[in-house]
Amino acid sequence: MADIKALGFDVFGTVVDWRSSIAREGEAFGRKHGITADWVKFADAWRGLYQPSMDKVRSGEIGWTKLDTLHRMALDQLLPQFGIKGVAEADLDHLNRAWHRLDPWPDAVPGLTRLKAKYVLTTLSNGNVSLMVNMARRAGLPWDTILGAEPTKHYKPHPQAYLGTADYLGLKPAELMLVAAHNGDLAAARKVGLRTAFVARPTEYGPGQTKDLAPESDWDVVARDFVDLAAKLGC
Amino acid sequence: MADIKALGFDVFGTVVDWRSSIAREGEAFGRKHGITADWVKFADAWRGLYQPSMDKVRSGEIGWTKLDTLHRMALDQLLPQFGIKGVAEADLDHLNRAWHRLDPWPDAVPGLTRLKAKYVLTTLSNGNVSLMVNMARRAGLPWDTILGAEPTKHYKPHPQAYLGTADYLGLKPAELMLVAAHNGDLAAARKVGLRTAFVARPTEYGPGQTKDLAPESDWDVVARDFVDLAAKLGC
Repeated sequence: MADIKALGFDVFGTVVDWRSSIAREGEAFGRKHGITADWVKFADAWRGLYQPSMDKVRSGEIGWTKLDTLHRMALDQLLPQFGIKGVAEADLDHLNRAWHRLDPWPDAVPGLTRLKAKYVLTTLSNGNVSLMVNMARRAGLPWDTILGAEPTKHYKPHPQAYLGTADYLGLKPAELMLVAAHNGDLAAARKVGLRTAFVARPTEYGPGQTKDLAPESDWDVVARDFVDLAAKLGC
Repeated sequence: MADIKALGFDVFGTVVDWRSSIAREGEAFGRKHGITADWVKFADAWRGLYQPSMDKVRSGEIGWTKLDTLHRMALDQLLPQFGIKGVAEADLDHLNRAWHRLDPWPDAVPGLTRLKAKYVLTTLSNGNVSLMVNMARRAGLPWDTILGAEPTKHYKPHPQAYLGTADYLGLKPAELMLVAAHNGDLAAARKVGLRTAFVARPTEYGPGQTKDLAPESDWDVVARDFVDLAAKLGC
């Protein structure tokens, strides 16, 4: 553990609460355009197309495509289902960028601020660079830099997303720790030599969440939240 | 000018004073290892190999190579000339990372702090990501992210270093302004559509500096230092 130099964070779900934030953005969009819909269901449906849309890139069906573009392809697919029509392109683009305006979990900024004193902090997310930069500026997330899928041109859980991030940081895999609320992400990171920290986010998918409620392996650290993570890492 | 969303900074010479910092690091190295040398001359000689070493990548003579590695190749070449011998690998590696420990010009942090309130701030440097991250943490440079040569895999003045940086930020070239103390860098950025700001650093190369003492074109902004740049950009 003393070898760890940097922490790489999964972001959607781990650092920010995408579900209530997207629902909030949907509400605001609906009010502006006179559209009534179940915006929590809208958030879940949009997020539901997340893995399938990245699978198109992973499989090589389409070339490298930023998450902003994948989000837009998914949004366009959902428009009829949620009665969204007659909306100007600029307003749809603004809605698509709702993913740039996600709110952090309450412990995220205090925890990251403590962790930054000792560790290099980077995103290790599938979100594209501009999405992560805009989110960080709005939410006050103190990243040292933005890495992950776009700079490595591979979506997690591809090994290169993790290994390429370590390489950008000039680190060996074991000097980089992935922090994530998702056991699958941590398993993929461990497989290529990263250290692992699990932080449960039991309401990421709402009150009825059934997965990722607990660690499913002996991750190097298991913490209640980012403040607890800071304490456990000696910050 | 109202369209500008982000500022991309040249770093070596523009943000940080590499010459006196490398001389200082050389002095400390010399004291530790009992080596007497002209460390200012050493700094100039090391920097003198900067463009030739990147030319090997630009020409395709060697594949993509991080600046840390190019710095080390240049350092190894200079060792005999400066009487450096019998030094352990770890100490040579520490000396090579002197480029991670460069001091900012006095106006850099105050100016960047003001500019950050209005603009996304990124490096647009030939320095590699870990070098830029370590430098920023030590010097307190408030970048939103680290971009430039390594994430685009092209050394400036290749067009892709500028255009790829704009693309990572989700911006059109005209929405990104390069800030640099070097007329040649600005000319290459303008050629591909970026906006340009010149900040003279008349002692970058020491008291006898002969180049880049003044703007050589009608750059969009010409500022005395970063605080003046902030004022001229309405921050």
